[in-house]
Formats: sequence, structure tokens, C-alpha cells
Amino acid sequence: MAPVVNARIRFNAVPKGYPIPGETTVCDATQSIDLEVQELHGGFLVKTLVLSIDPGMRTRMRNPEEKGYAPAFVLGEPIDGLGVGLVLRSENSDVRVGQYIQGRGFLHQEYFILPALQMGMAFLEKHPKLPLTVYVGALGMAGKTAWAGWKEYSNAKKGETVFVSAGAGPVGSMVIQLAKLDGCKVIASAGSADKVAFLRDIGADVAFNYKTSDTREVLGREGPVDIYWDNVGGDTLDAALDYAAINARFLECGLISNLNASAAQSLVIKDPLLVLSKSISLQGIASFRIIPKHESAFYASVPEKLAKGEIKYREDVRRGIESVEEMLEAVQKGTNEGKAVVVVAEE
Amino acid sequence: MAPVVNARIRFNAVPKGYPIPGETTVCDATQSIDLEVQELHGGFLVKTLVLSIDPGMRTRMRNPEEKGYAPAFVLGEPIDGLGVGLVLRSENSDVRVGQYIQGRGFLHQEYFILPALQMGMAFLEKHPKLPLTVYVGALGMAGKTAWAGWKEYSNAKKGETVFVSAGAGPVGSMVIQLAKLDGCKVIASAGSADKVAFLRDIGADVAFNYKTSDTREVLGREGPVDIYWDNVGGDTLDAALDYAAINARFLECGLISNLNASAAQSLVIKDPLLVLSKSISLQGIASFRIIPKHESAFYASVPEKLAKGEIKYREDVRRGIESVEEMLEAVQKGTNEGKAVVVVAEE
Repeated sequence: MAPVVNARIRFNAVPKGYPIPGETTVCDATQSIDLEVQELHGGFLVKTLVLSIDPGMRTRMRNPEEKGYAPAFVLGEPIDGLGVGLVLRSENSDVRVGQYIQGRGFLHQEYFILPALQMGMAFLEKHPKLPLTVYVGALGMAGKTAWAGWKEYSNAKKGETVFVSAGAGPVGSMVIQLAKLDGCKVIASAGSADKVAFLRDIGADVAFNYKTSDTREVLGREGPVDIYWDNVGGDTLDAALDYAAINARFLECGLISNLNASAAQSLVIKDPLLVLSKSISLQGIASFRIIPKHESAFYASVPEKLAKGEIKYREDVRRGIESVEEMLEAVQKGTNEGKAVVVVAEE
Repeated sequence: MAPVVNARIRFNAVPKGYPIPGETTVCDATQSIDLEVQELHGGFLVKTLVLSIDPGMRTRMRNPEEKGYAPAFVLGEPIDGLGVGLVLRSENSDVRVGQYIQGRGFLHQEYFILPALQMGMAFLEKHPKLPLTVYVGALGMAGKTAWAGWKEYSNAKKGETVFVSAGAGPVGSMVIQLAKLDGCKVIASAGSADKVAFLRDIGADVAFNYKTSDTREVLGREGPVDIYWDNVGGDTLDAALDYAAINARFLECGLISNLNASAAQSLVIKDPLLVLSKSISLQGIASFRIIPKHESAFYASVPEKLAKGEIKYREDVRRGIESVEEMLEAVQKGTNEGKAVVVVAEE
């Protein structure tokens, strides 16, 4: 069989603000691979099927000397992230041809070779009624982050009021539905009419477009807020502090509005005495640390609820590895409509 | 008996930064009172004995239209705070001559009349071996804040490392000793050699002067920090985040370095992703909300430990109501040496 193109997305330049397709990253289709004769050296060959595009990838687009949450991307090299792939060939007896692999460390490259299953990767048993894309969204890190964070830290009580920012995203939309299952009133925000319609569809009691409605006005009318699931940081966090209830729990899951800020990720809390006077707690969520404790309960509950439609999800699926670049920008600007997924190839 | 001077400390101007004696406040000795014939209208006459000068009073030196933690002081009127007084005369059958009154709402005025015991005030049963000043410090709001905050939120485990900023203050010094009683390693900072000596005296394992030592260097060597009792906010909070342990608990008790900041009390967290990546919680402490739950355990334990010297405290006692003004400035600048107390009069 003739060699095929093995396109990849290379990290090309540290962005100042939002990542720019063709500048921050470049799609390089100059390399090829012969899938039948490529030397495996005892490892196995993976065909990339699905790649997850996540807001947190922005933190990896930095100079390597800057400390960070996750390793910096290497200039000139392919970026990596969460994904799903199919084993095409294997010389490793632990890995069989035809198995699905999911998890971290997926190169943004159409085909790649691994010596063995890496830390953070696992075999995937596909649910017959669910598509593979769901394994990087509602059943992937996003869904598990929402589940584990909510179960570990929310201390939710029936009748409490919950505010979820970026509610139409893959984490936020799961949080909204978990809060409703726990009998809470849910206020949720998103950045387009279409997303707001989705918020209503998944059960948010109050859904608003933060670009056309005043967050403070909504929270003033519908609050006070007992639990704030914060995906965005920035001024929305100040607004939530203003309208927080006594003993409110702020679950700090993401700071998207800070990731692209000029002031290098600093967070300004305008009235920090509110944290003291209202006895508020702010709890940072590092999902990888709490998921193991909650994962079996998650798998026992969520896949079946998804298959039955009892928990809904929405994906913005684009096709072809070259779509990664526009998606990286979209998730920072919030212009994607649902969990950002790139289907690199069908099986 | 002839009238006596009834001096008072009036709020005179909203300060921009630190309060300035004679400008922010003025000591007004123009009024007098005849203690024997003064009309009581069914109430009682209090002689002010002790006044507590607390950093948080700075938040009340604001324009009344600004929202705040506690009511704004009224321009032209006497300020108020925590204190201890003696009942000189009474027409109220619930209040007897010779009783001590303690609590909130003590006018900074040598004598005043109340119709009845106010919310936040209580009778005081003086321990025979303790001076009255201790009832506004180690046995007052400061000691109770430390006790209740520590018991409610620290979740301290033996062997954990605790960092206490403003450790020589009345709250910090109590926290240090409670942490030692719980078997923790304690790192504590203060702003003078004299205060650092006091930190060692009360059992801090590592004591340093933040003005002459680099906080980051100390925390880097002696950390990571499992529990940070934050009395100051500002850059020390960033340093504590840098050297925090996974799952660290930050107990946010005070933001003294933010109270006088030009940027109107905003708090800048330079690297907020640390809160997420280390699963840190920041818990605001509003002592009045948690003290009731812990007060009986506090009184069962602390007075006796103070009387026996098992818990130590240090007071900066100045005499005469006119000393209030210099003390208000000193507690903001941290130049007081121990809990700031003004003894207005002996009994």
C-alpha cells in the first residue's frame, strides 16, 4: 500500500492573546506514513479518530520557562490533548488490533506510534448507542470533571440556587443537569441565543445571554447564589460575589476570561471583603485529583443516562485535522456551539 | 459633684490611605457630664474602661453610600468599637451598678448612657487572675475569631505545616498556639525583631520578619504550606499560593494590606490557576457567624489556659482616650506591639 499523508498540527508561536490559526499553530501535511510497513519497534500504531479541543489547552501555549498547570507545548512539535483512536497494528501483546484507546497525550497527528499504553490512556469499551465523540465530552474529562467536582465539593442541598457560567459548555451543561437532579434551582449563562436555548433545553430554570443581559441584574433578581460553578473568572466572579448567599460555595473550575487577559492570568477580585463577610469558600478544582474517587459511580450512572437522553449533551463537531486550528481559537472566544470535537477520521 | 470632661473621638474625614490622627479623627474634649445628676431616662450610665482598636475599623472609615462589611462611621459623631465598661448608675432593673459590660458598640467616649444592653453586648464575669484588657483581646473578638475559625475550617491534622501572617497580632498569636496544641509545625511572620521574638516565645517553629526576610525563600525552605491563616492578603497571599501544598486550606481572616491600598480594596491574585491546580480552598471567615457555635468550648478552655500561662498573649496598652487616634494609625501600619488596647480609665 502506498504511503498516506500524516498531517499534524504543530505549535508555531506563543500567542499574546487568542490563538491565531496559521500563526500560533500550523497544519503541516508534508509528512507521510506507510501504514503497512511502518516500523513499530514492538509498539503499536494508532489511527486518530477524535480529538478534543479544550479551553485549558491555552495554558500550554506558553514559553517553556514559565511554570504552569500542564506541560508547555514544544515549539515546532505537534500539540497533544485528549482523544480517541483505533489500534491499526500492534507488536505489543497487551494491545490488540481493533481496540479503541482513549485519554490524554493524543498527538494532534493523523497516525502515531506508541511503545505502550501511556499514563492517562485507557482502553475504551464503546456503548452501542453512543458515538465515539462523546468519550471526549460528556463521558470524557469534561463530564467527569463536572461529576467529580459537583459530588466532591458542592455540598448541594435541595432547593439551593446554583449559578453556572459557560453553562452551554461540556462541563457547565453537565453541572446544570446534575444540579437539577439534586433538586436545585439553576441560573445559567452563555454567550449566544442558540446556547441559551440549549440551557433551557437541559433544564436551567433561568437562562440568559451574558452579552445582552446584565449578569448583576439577573443574579440580583434570581439569587442569592448558594453555589457558583465558575468556568470563567473575570468580572462574572465579582458579580457572583456581589450576589452570593451567606456560606456560598464557589467551585473554581476555569478562568477562561483570565487565560487570554493581557495582565498575564492575574485575577482581580474587586471586593475581596465579600469573601470574608459572607463566609464564602472558593474551592479550586483539579479534576484529575478527584476523578479517581468518583469514576466508578460516574460510569455506573452517566453512560446509561446519556443513551436514554436523560442527560443531554451538545457537540460542535468539525471534520478533518486541519479544523483543530479554528477550534482552538473558537473555544477561547466561546464561538463554538457545544463541546468542541474534531473528527479526524471515521473508522 | 461638679461636671467632668467627657472626651470623645469623632470621625472627621474619610482617609485616602492610612488614617491620620487629628484629620481622620479628632479628639473632642469640649463636652462635659455631671455623673451624679445626668438624666438617665430609665437607662444606665457606663464608664468606659477599655477600648479595643482593631484593624477592621478601617473599613468603617468610608463614605456612607459605599456598601461595607460593618456600618460606616458617621462624620462628626464618635466612632465605636469593642470595649469594656463599668455601670456607674442604673435605672434599668436588668442592669446593676458595679457590673462590667463588654462587647460591640462601645462609643469612643469616656461616659455614655444606654437605655438597655445592646445587641452584641453582654455582662462580663472577670476572671480573678486576668486583667480587664484581656477581654477585648485574647478573650475578646480576636481570641474567639482565632478559636472559631481554626476549629470550624482548618481541618488541621497532626504534623501539617501552618503559615500564619501577622502572627504577633491578637488573632495570629492565638492561631499559632492553637496550631501547636494540634501538633502542627508553625511558620509565622511579623514586622519587627521584637514581634519575631514573641512569635518564638509562643512556640512558632519558624519565625521571621517579612521586612528583612524573603517570604518566598522561607516558605520554599520550610513549606509546603497545608494551612495558611491569612491576616494580610496582598503579595503574601501570592507567596503562600506559590508554596501551598496540594489541598491546602487558606483561611481568609483579614486583608490588612488591601484595606489601605490605593486600588480601593481590590485583591490581585497573580497566578489564580494555582488555586485550581493545587485544589486549594480559600475560606472567608466572618467570625460573628461561627463564634456562637464554638463559644462555650472557648470559655471552657481558654481563660484557664491564659491564667496559667499555657496560652500567652501580648498587649500594647496605651492610656487615655486621646491615645485612640495614634492606635488607629498604628494597627494599620502594624507598628503596635501586641493587641492594641486603650485603657480609658481605671475603675
